[in-house]
Amino acid sequence: MIIITRPDITDAQLDHLRERIEAAGLHTHLSRGEHRTIVGCIGDEARLEELPLRSIPGVESILPILKPYKLASREFVVNRTVVRVGEHASIGGHDLTIIAGPCSVENRAMLMETAVAVRSSGATILRGGAFKPRSSPYSFQGLGREALELLAAVRAETRLPVVTEVLDTRDVDLVAEHADMLQVGARNMQNYALLAELGRVQRPILLKRGLSATISELLMAAEYIMANGNHQIVLCERGIRTFERATRNTLDVSAIPVLKRESHLPVIVDPSHAGGDAKLVAPLAYAAIAAGADGLIVEVHPNPEDALSDGDQSLDFKAFASMMSRIPAFAIAAERSFQAPSWREALVGAGIA
Amino acid sequence: MIIITRPDITDAQLDHLRERIEAAGLHTHLSRGEHRTIVGCIGDEARLEELPLRSIPGVESILPILKPYKLASREFVVNRTVVRVGEHASIGGHDLTIIAGPCSVENRAMLMETAVAVRSSGATILRGGAFKPRSSPYSFQGLGREALELLAAVRAETRLPVVTEVLDTRDVDLVAEHADMLQVGARNMQNYALLAELGRVQRPILLKRGLSATISELLMAAEYIMANGNHQIVLCERGIRTFERATRNTLDVSAIPVLKRESHLPVIVDPSHAGGDAKLVAPLAYAAIAAGADGLIVEVHPNPEDALSDGDQSLDFKAFASMMSRIPAFAIAAERSFQAPSWREALVGAGIA
Amino acid sequence: MIIITRPDITDAQLDHLRERIEAAGLHTHLSRGEHRTIVGCIGDEARLEELPLRSIPGVESILPILKPYKLASREFVVNRTVVRVGEHASIGGHDLTIIAGPCSVENRAMLMETAVAVRSSGATILRGGAFKPRSSPYSFQGLGREALELLAAVRAETRLPVVTEVLDTRDVDLVAEHADMLQVGARNMQNYALLAELGRVQRPILLKRGLSATISELLMAAEYIMANGNHQIVLCERGIRTFERATRNTLDVSAIPVLKRESHLPVIVDPSHAGGDAKLVAPLAYAAIAAGADGLIVEVHPNPEDALSDGDQSLDFKAFASMMSRIPAFAIAAERSFQAPSWREALVGAGIA
Amino acid sequence: MIIITRPDITDAQLDHLRERIEAAGLHTHLSRGEHRTIVGCIGDEARLEELPLRSIPGVESILPILKPYKLASREFVVNRTVVRVGEHASIGGHDLTIIAGPCSVENRAMLMETAVAVRSSGATILRGGAFKPRSSPYSFQGLGREALELLAAVRAETRLPVVTEVLDTRDVDLVAEHADMLQVGARNMQNYALLAELGRVQRPILLKRGLSATISELLMAAEYIMANGNHQIVLCERGIRTFERATRNTLDVSAIPVLKRESHLPVIVDPSHAGGDAKLVAPLAYAAIAAGADGLIVEVHPNPEDALSDGDQSLDFKAFASMMSRIPAFAIAAERSFQAPSWREALVGAGIA
Repeated sequence: MIIITRPDITDAQLDHLRERIEAAGLHTHLSRGEHRTIVGCIGDEARLEELPLRSIPGVESILPILKPYKLASREFVVNRTVVRVGEHASIGGHDLTIIAGPCSVENRAMLMETAVAVRSSGATILRGGAFKPRSSPYSFQGLGREALELLAAVRAETRLPVVTEVLDTRDVDLVAEHADMLQVGARNMQNYALLAELGRVQRPILLKRGLSATISELLMAAEYIMANGNHQIVLCERGIRTFERATRNTLDVSAIPVLKRESHLPVIVDPSHAGGDAKLVAPLAYAAIAAGADGLIVEVHPNPEDALSDGDQSLDFKAFASMMSRIPAFAIAAERSFQAPSWREALVGAGIA
Repeated sequence: MIIITRPDITDAQLDHLRERIEAAGLHTHLSRGEHRTIVGCIGDEARLEELPLRSIPGVESILPILKPYKLASREFVVNRTVVRVGEHASIGGHDLTIIAGPCSVENRAMLMETAVAVRSSGATILRGGAFKPRSSPYSFQGLGREALELLAAVRAETRLPVVTEVLDTRDVDLVAEHADMLQVGARNMQNYALLAELGRVQRPILLKRGLSATISELLMAAEYIMANGNHQIVLCERGIRTFERATRNTLDVSAIPVLKRESHLPVIVDPSHAGGDAKLVAPLAYAAIAAGADGLIVEVHPNPEDALSDGDQSLDFKAFASMMSRIPAFAIAAERSFQAPSWREALVGAGIA
Repeated sequence: MIIITRPDITDAQLDHLRERIEAAGLHTHLSRGEHRTIVGCIGDEARLEELPLRSIPGVESILPILKPYKLASREFVVNRTVVRVGEHASIGGHDLTIIAGPCSVENRAMLMETAVAVRSSGATILRGGAFKPRSSPYSFQGLGREALELLAAVRAETRLPVVTEVLDTRDVDLVAEHADMLQVGARNMQNYALLAELGRVQRPILLKRGLSATISELLMAAEYIMANGNHQIVLCERGIRTFERATRNTLDVSAIPVLKRESHLPVIVDPSHAGGDAKLVAPLAYAAIAAGADGLIVEVHPNPEDALSDGDQSLDFKAFASMMSRIPAFAIAAERSFQAPSWREALVGAGIA
Repeated sequence: MIIITRPDITDAQLDHLRERIEAAGLHTHLSRGEHRTIVGCIGDEARLEELPLRSIPGVESILPILKPYKLASREFVVNRTVVRVGEHASIGGHDLTIIAGPCSVENRAMLMETAVAVRSSGATILRGGAFKPRSSPYSFQGLGREALELLAAVRAETRLPVVTEVLDTRDVDLVAEHADMLQVGARNMQNYALLAELGRVQRPILLKRGLSATISELLMAAEYIMANGNHQIVLCERGIRTFERATRNTLDVSAIPVLKRESHLPVIVDPSHAGGDAKLVAPLAYAAIAAGADGLIVEVHPNPEDALSDGDQSLDFKAFASMMSRIPAFAIAAERSFQAPSWREALVGAGIA
């Protein structure tokens, strides 16, 4: 950490500042320039972050040198993390991974029908909302426990692992019992009680970036879960809030290479929420893969006109299949692969798929 | 709700669109312009909001006419709501209300000392964090239950009602037992599980605006609590996230008159978090009162240099007293009052204060 | 245009409102709902936009139905515009077009060297700044007229048409004499004096999106030039300003499909300015092509360490060639083509290239 | 300037980095921490800013220490600048200054009528647009030269100095002949050709903050004018673009104290453009004064319903007078004064006002 002092700092103030830093167990190192004296602090920067240094007289500004996240950073873990989801799927390897399914689980028939359809187009993980964070208290809030049971039942039949969102610390165990992967939604990215609870779970976490969270804050949210014990985290860019309103959110496609540079964790993209418009899903999905994403999470519904939530941005089976048919070419261009995963062959061999 | 169709909509598509709307129990009404046919929908707009109308072929855009919030709107409740906090304090009347206290409750001595100091400068409600939402898992997370007990003890001695943040649905009852008012922090404004739980509590709620929440979303969060049964809500503007980084956040001072126009709920401002800098607290506080705020919530610490959290933006007792000494003049200019509340006189009469 | 009235509008106010609209030559059409009366306005919406309808008593809000741009819209021009640049290049056809060159023209040698290098990697248009918009008055401001002459000389030798920015209405004729295409920079996107002047020029315009311009405002800036007589416009997405600071700007990749849907004009992307970091140029370039862009504009410098401007985001020849070698695969995936353009063969035949 | 190196920097890279810096005439100073080596650069930081240091291998990030602006900073000029406008008015002293008038000059009668009305309510400078930056080419563009002549004529009669916007470098001399103060609009804040030209003018400049300009960029735009010779600049906060759409822009009220701390230049606020709504003008004006602004610029029109531009946000004479009647109380609270300026008494004595 580097502290830039004001041009009018007194010697007594400078001494006081150094004492505060040294009392926290760090060494200081002065560099007197023409206009400013700079105090370099050598030692455990995290201890300094706790101090309100800006409120000390004579201090102009503070420049942190180290990143605030450790466990999530590439400096800490050199090899890229591959997160396993269920028995057969994984995210972060050479193969791209496509997660697909309905926004909300509405009933068994539609869930089963969607699972089969997305699997046949190449998806290897099923998504489906049980608890829905809705901005209106008057909107459909999800089927809750019943949806979790339907997800588990459809998994048993299709062998697709399932991911679903958890909203409430009280539901974490229940959701972990039924799902293979737990999702933290954008609105809960800084719900620290929930993050801490998910650190204690033996399930991978799909962590969505908050609407106005910086890339660094997304990594700090991952750090929160990791520091509590769970290192199986997949990051998800899903659009940020900007001044532009032609699209629901603005997909921050640059976040993909930045996250891959900063962190060893896999990064996927949600083109459905980013654009908020079924017609934008395919171009945003292609852009995500081109920029280096490890996969996608896409909303698919048998009949979007009838969807109880997010129908505007859901693809029907035909549109999803059409998009998926073009993924392999983008995977090749991106020097990744996207193929029928071997477990699917095995299932076919076993007469299941 | 008004639906604007595409110029190339077919008659069959238009018929299909009208059937969908009428099936939801509304009447439709066509208006054919030169370039576009417009479908007006008459009836319960909320039922239409559930339908993914944008995904119906031939639809170009949807224009909602009614506000999505009802209970929070001035159309629903004509008189301004005055929220009582504890036995003696209230927010939303002619008098301004100042809430002050430390970011975190650190120990009994500092809390007591701060409570006495802010009370003597004119604050009538004490703030103090027990559970702290910290962006780093390595930062001080608050004293939890112990802090709640200290708050209750200091209230008993000072007669200042207390407000503190609740982060976890599992803590709601515990916090409600100890505090007079429960705060929802900015990062939890769309934590719907928490909002729903707070709807069931017999305590007023201090609802902070999310970092990137629109004014309409803040009112929907209030609606969420109200629809679950609790109508005692105070809204709090605390700065939004913008491209500007000279200040921690950007105080959206315009939100104050807009909220007062749209809603009957009281509106206060947190100048400490908005600017993130002790030197900005006073000018932002004055601006808030000038723009029509019903009060302030301010971080005060006996010695900000030693604060375990938010020291950079905390005022010491002298700076707080200095700011408070100028509030009456702004109150007069704003056609409000700010005076020693009558209960304090009563306490003096009773030999307490 | 649709006008939503307040619930408490009086009959006299409603009559006054209708009179104002009818005086502007439109018909009105009332629709009385449960909570609101809605006034539909049929006729020339542009005439209404001039009226300050919101200031008329009883009006709650105004909903425009038609887009404010006409000449730039796909409703007006059904076929996609292909913009020719110089004799041999064009933007907007099936082939992707790559524009490359230094941020600033520094001297003849570096410009010539760069032109030859980018041409051999597949660029077909040369960029180079003569007048530089620099945020500091103390920074290098470009070589001005001398740079224009160098651009023209290098074009004569390499047959690469050139694009360069114009900052001042007084320089428009001078720049048009020397360059094949004139660029409007992001900071001048709403410099209406300049836009109007460019409407009178016989040169295609490369119009960059402003840092905080909406997609609609970008199209209105194009409309400004078109309404003044010049319909040869290429739109350029170059990153918008958001709260995120890990990248210089946030590439709004969604703008590409939205612009292609709304307008017939070609759309290219500037990955150099969007990310502000040489390491991000390639992934953002690939994402842009995947999302449907018609081309790229990329900063290339013989030795970025020595660049007089934008060195941090410039590619050296090797990095540019490496990126270009991967473009064909993305072009194929995007169902576009990218090949040695026919004119280059002709040049080879003529012994020039 | 401080350079933070990557953990894997080699000795050769470090030597190369130091050579580059020393070749620019600065000294370097190494500080080896546990995780990073830091290179401090001592000397003329401006020379380093020209170098693309981030592109040098082994460099992780660059931390500038000094502010990029000098002439505009309080370190350079200790006393606050008071800008004189015409013979009698000034901005930046103890008295608040109110500028008012129509968005556009529409004709002589309305301009004269408005000037007399705003003067009688306490305004001391008249605003009026001659050249209007309109986002649509189909909107009223202002009367141009004719408006300038009307402004000069009304000034002669009312003795109110006038301020009007200049859009085009070619019009600078013409506008300077007629107006007492030249305005740079938000959309031209980074039109460097215009800023440079205004540096050569003997008239004070009203410099509006761009829609997405940071406070630092606003000061750099002032620096641009100052470095070209004109030090008479008034800064104007007029709302920034954010995600919030309940108001046209978001008034950044915090910018007022920050600008006053960073710069010696006067700061005024435009509450008309900030809110874009006549009903918000008064509360935002009061907030601006409370936060320390030196004055206001307000749009006033005899009949906003008939305004050719910005009618929605213009006050009529009654609303302006009502707002002005409450300014003295806010001025007192803000420890400023607002009184009938002495020159007006003189005019009264001379039988003019």
